[in-house]
Amino acid sequence: MEKLRTHIQHIAPINDEEFEEIKTHFTVKRVRKGQYLLSEGDEVKHEFFVLSGIYKVFYIDGQEKEYILQFAQENWWMSDYPSFFKQKDATMYIECLVEGEVLCLTLQNREKLSATFHKMEHFFRVKLTNGYVALQLRIKLLLSGTPQQRYEEFARLYPNLMQQIPKKLIAEFLGVSRETLSRLYQ
Amino acid sequence: MEKLRTHIQHIAPINDEEFEEIKTHFTVKRVRKGQYLLSEGDEVKHEFFVLSGIYKVFYIDGQEKEYILQFAQENWWMSDYPSFFKQKDATMYIECLVEGEVLCLTLQNREKLSATFHKMEHFFRVKLTNGYVALQLRIKLLLSGTPQQRYEEFARLYPNLMQQIPKKLIAEFLGVSRETLSRLYQ
Repeated sequence: MEKLRTHIQHIAPINDEEFEEIKTHFTVKRVRKGQYLLSEGDEVKHEFFVLSGIYKVFYIDGQEKEYILQFAQENWWMSDYPSFFKQKDATMYIECLVEGEVLCLTLQNREKLSATFHKMEHFFRVKLTNGYVALQLRIKLLLSGTPQQRYEEFARLYPNLMQQIPKKLIAEFLGVSRETLSRLYQ
Repeated sequence: MEKLRTHIQHIAPINDEEFEEIKTHFTVKRVRKGQYLLSEGDEVKHEFFVLSGIYKVFYIDGQEKEYILQFAQENWWMSDYPSFFKQKDATMYIECLVEGEVLCLTLQNREKLSATFHKMEHFFRVKLTNGYVALQLRIKLLLSGTPQQRYEEFARLYPNLMQQIPKKLIAEFLGVSRETLSRLYQ
């Protein structure tokens, strides 16, 4: 739980007593490589805070083609957000690529934390702000970036993921064909 | 200002006294058709709350090609968010398509409102949550949607914009060529 505390502390200073209460809202879960934390059609019970490991959030279209919406590693948050926030059934999958541990937070507990602690409401607002900005920049890259620009931006932002995720999945995340990526980076 | 109050009230109930203080953080601005609220290189001083009119938020790449990140109409918020939140110079433009009025909010006042009123922090968190979800759905459509699916989703979500924005701009927003869109919808 110390990782969570450091992570929150970075945005909203909290004292021991507050953290003791905050942490009761989370549960820990170990995840093995290849394990699914969520599948299409599931009830979306949790948002996850990644303590360790690497995960991919993806969906599958009518032609069985897979699209990656998000990777997640240490200190990142992940869920099928459209469904989590609206409490609808999942349209996405979350698969573990490298084993690790996550903290699980229900929407009810998330709202309770935000209502009880102004600091936690602030924390979640700041995290959402950063997430919103990251998504806008991703849309910008998807609309106008060449495959090379997309790849280089990814490498710049996530050097750590570059080393641990197969090129095939990175190509998928960037909306670039594997062949194009291989041509650019042998 | 009543529109702003109704808009906030919808998410966070506030009383007369609170609103009297909240509204002092905003300034009103009239905008004419064709007028730019922001240009690349400007200091991003404000987030805007749209009282009336229609606006487009876009950027221009090295080849002078224009890409639309967002449209905005009554009750929507808009800015060059990556630059606004990091207080960097604008990389985007905001142009008025249909004349109207906006409320202007500085980042400093936004943070002050959030720090002073837990309710306002809640309000902004909820707005960001909705915005985050909308951007994820847009990424989903950009990655996997056919031109037809993108167009139909846009028409479903924003029937009002459909009537007031030229098809050319909608095609640009959807990342679809004008020719493709014309072929689908004569």
